[in-house]
Amino acid sequence: MSHTAELIAVGTELLLGNIANTDAQTLSKELSALGINVFYHTVVGDNPDRLRQAVDIAKGRADILITTGGLGPTCDDLTKNVLAEAFGKKLVYNPEAAQRMEAYFQKLHPEAGQKMTENNYQQAYLPEGCTPFQNDWGTAPGCGFEAGGVHVVMLPGPPSECGPMFRARAVPYLRDLTDGVIASRSLRIFGMGESAVEHQLREQMNSLQNPTLAPYAKEGEVELRITAKAEDDHAAQALIAPVERELRERFGPLIYGADVPSLESVCLSLLREQGLTLSAAESCTGGLIAKRFTDLSGASAAFRGGVVSYTNEVKHCVLGVPQDLLDQYGAVSEPVARAMAEGARRALGADLAVSATGVAGPDADDRGNPVGLVYVALAWEGGVHVRAIHAAGPRERVRTVAASHAFDLVRRRLTGLDL
Amino acid sequence: MSHTAELIAVGTELLLGNIANTDAQTLSKELSALGINVFYHTVVGDNPDRLRQAVDIAKGRADILITTGGLGPTCDDLTKNVLAEAFGKKLVYNPEAAQRMEAYFQKLHPEAGQKMTENNYQQAYLPEGCTPFQNDWGTAPGCGFEAGGVHVVMLPGPPSECGPMFRARAVPYLRDLTDGVIASRSLRIFGMGESAVEHQLREQMNSLQNPTLAPYAKEGEVELRITAKAEDDHAAQALIAPVERELRERFGPLIYGADVPSLESVCLSLLREQGLTLSAAESCTGGLIAKRFTDLSGASAAFRGGVVSYTNEVKHCVLGVPQDLLDQYGAVSEPVARAMAEGARRALGADLAVSATGVAGPDADDRGNPVGLVYVALAWEGGVHVRAIHAAGPRERVRTVAASHAFDLVRRRLTGLDL
Repeated sequence: MSHTAELIAVGTELLLGNIANTDAQTLSKELSALGINVFYHTVVGDNPDRLRQAVDIAKGRADILITTGGLGPTCDDLTKNVLAEAFGKKLVYNPEAAQRMEAYFQKLHPEAGQKMTENNYQQAYLPEGCTPFQNDWGTAPGCGFEAGGVHVVMLPGPPSECGPMFRARAVPYLRDLTDGVIASRSLRIFGMGESAVEHQLREQMNSLQNPTLAPYAKEGEVELRITAKAEDDHAAQALIAPVERELRERFGPLIYGADVPSLESVCLSLLREQGLTLSAAESCTGGLIAKRFTDLSGASAAFRGGVVSYTNEVKHCVLGVPQDLLDQYGAVSEPVARAMAEGARRALGADLAVSATGVAGPDADDRGNPVGLVYVALAWEGGVHVRAIHAAGPRERVRTVAASHAFDLVRRRLTGLDL
Repeated sequence: MSHTAELIAVGTELLLGNIANTDAQTLSKELSALGINVFYHTVVGDNPDRLRQAVDIAKGRADILITTGGLGPTCDDLTKNVLAEAFGKKLVYNPEAAQRMEAYFQKLHPEAGQKMTENNYQQAYLPEGCTPFQNDWGTAPGCGFEAGGVHVVMLPGPPSECGPMFRARAVPYLRDLTDGVIASRSLRIFGMGESAVEHQLREQMNSLQNPTLAPYAKEGEVELRITAKAEDDHAAQALIAPVERELRERFGPLIYGADVPSLESVCLSLLREQGLTLSAAESCTGGLIAKRFTDLSGASAAFRGGVVSYTNEVKHCVLGVPQDLLDQYGAVSEPVARAMAEGARRALGADLAVSATGVAGPDADDRGNPVGLVYVALAWEGGVHVRAIHAAGPRERVRTVAASHAFDLVRRRLTGLDL
């Protein structure tokens, strides 16, 4: 039997925009992996009437109802009270939950200056007949119960408690309800726009039912996700494989990886495998290439360093870009991009070096080069290649796309593709 | 009259947990500042029936309905079609929207290899009688219209388009609906944690009704927003002023600005006013200081450049950090931070230079320095100051907080405060 879950997050702080509903993201991923459909997320404030209304709507369209938040003492256990009432359950005292909270407070404040309050003891009351989800990550316990054909799961709101409790306590509870699994495969494309990718795939996307195929646009990139439902993982992978093969034939080297976090992470893996080092010379990207690469833990194994050369003097004095090139062609030019990459490779002692020089905007430069024109170069022992790009959009996007092109050059070079 | 808005986000990627609904957070903050209540957020997939159901529920309980997502060609303009039908509006061709998209594509690919597809032209159809929200940040236009007493606002889903379009196009549209004005003033604090700030303000926050006072935590920073409702801006400002004065007395130089976008933007303004230049030497921040500073348009007026010295060789050869300091104290040390800042100032020829060297994580360094320990330094003509910080949290947060400390040193130096 196929199940449908619905998520209700309780918390005024979400409606005020103080935090994003990351619990919904975490749980949706987990539910998808369990083969449970999710058709709606709802967010409601700390208000019993509106929560009750949301619960009444949700139980009419889903058979698994998962709440996050509204369990702690600061909200008077709003969620527990409203849900228990909505499903006709009494709240009963759970001694184990109370003991665990006592132990938690003891650990937190061993000098016993702060003790559990009456409010905390309220948290130990749970709906009758439920499966308690003891909380090893905070105080408020969660629980799961069934009433009138609907399975209700209540989880605490703090992300540091919600995700761990779901995985450790709710997944075993829910797994008993489901048959089958959902598997997905994400192919990442760089070098073709979203509309163009979608145009090529439109027929296929519409005709595919299982697996499904969906594109997601990222800045200057497209992610293609193939998702299959089957009775086990092996069968799901067998549904995915032929679609992946077809996409790989169609898009070839535009696909830079499958189930990888980013273009730069692919570069880091390749550099480490091949025992090579990288450096960067950045003008318009202003440190973004170095920043993105060093966001990756383990980057120090391959990254030597970078120079952000925001002035011609720095390009000349630190990177050794010949003054006559700067005078003759200007900083935003193919020869200067080339000399910057070569200079970074030399000055920072790396096997490969990338560079970027261009006009990030908002205004054209003093030589009339338009916003979005960027020269991106890659230098290696015995060679250098420059790519001219025209990135659309605001400053931030121009910089992001330019940095991605630099990583794309590295990726292509290290996998033997044309640059 | 008081208004209630409801947010509906459209996108299967949200239900699969691929992304969090950050648009809801962005818009909720903005709506709160406009004095518009938000009681529910809903997320629904790329499914016309379920979207229609969500719209029908929402229009029964809110008088402003804001959708995000489902406007691009990949989802067949799902949101526009469903909303137009739900509110009995025909879709009509908007030539300006089409022209803007053509210009966007022209800029993206001036060599005309890639053209607008039929799918893109579909995006130029908008509900009859609507106020078009042209898209300066991507392709799909948004719009606002009124039908049956409900105001509908449609925005694109990508966060880089949704927030900017809301602020630039939807806020003026919505502001016409509210009587009186809402004014707000945002004081930015660096150097005190959120709970400490909140602790100091708890009583005041609870007692204040108009204006209200609310803290928002950012990474390592706190924003205090004072919001007043009044019949005109002058009256609203008069309500805000005494609260601002009190907060300034309480927090003194921890407040780095009012209604400013960021610590680095304050630094850029100060540098420009005083005709000074800045450079950076970065180890653990890996380019983030340079990246954040050059995110600001106009940064080139003050920024000379930076060196990302991810290895000791680069610290020594490019920045001139003496080898014996590196050998004796290690890269993560007060003397090396000092020498890096002095070296960046010298090598890049700037009036001021900042440096950061520390352990971003996930692991302690080989000398046993713990994750989160960072030395941040500022060098100026005739002096240098080092600040040791202990930042908690994952790699990304350590880097962000360290970069902010570097900017805080610049800000304090240029305003004559103690470092």
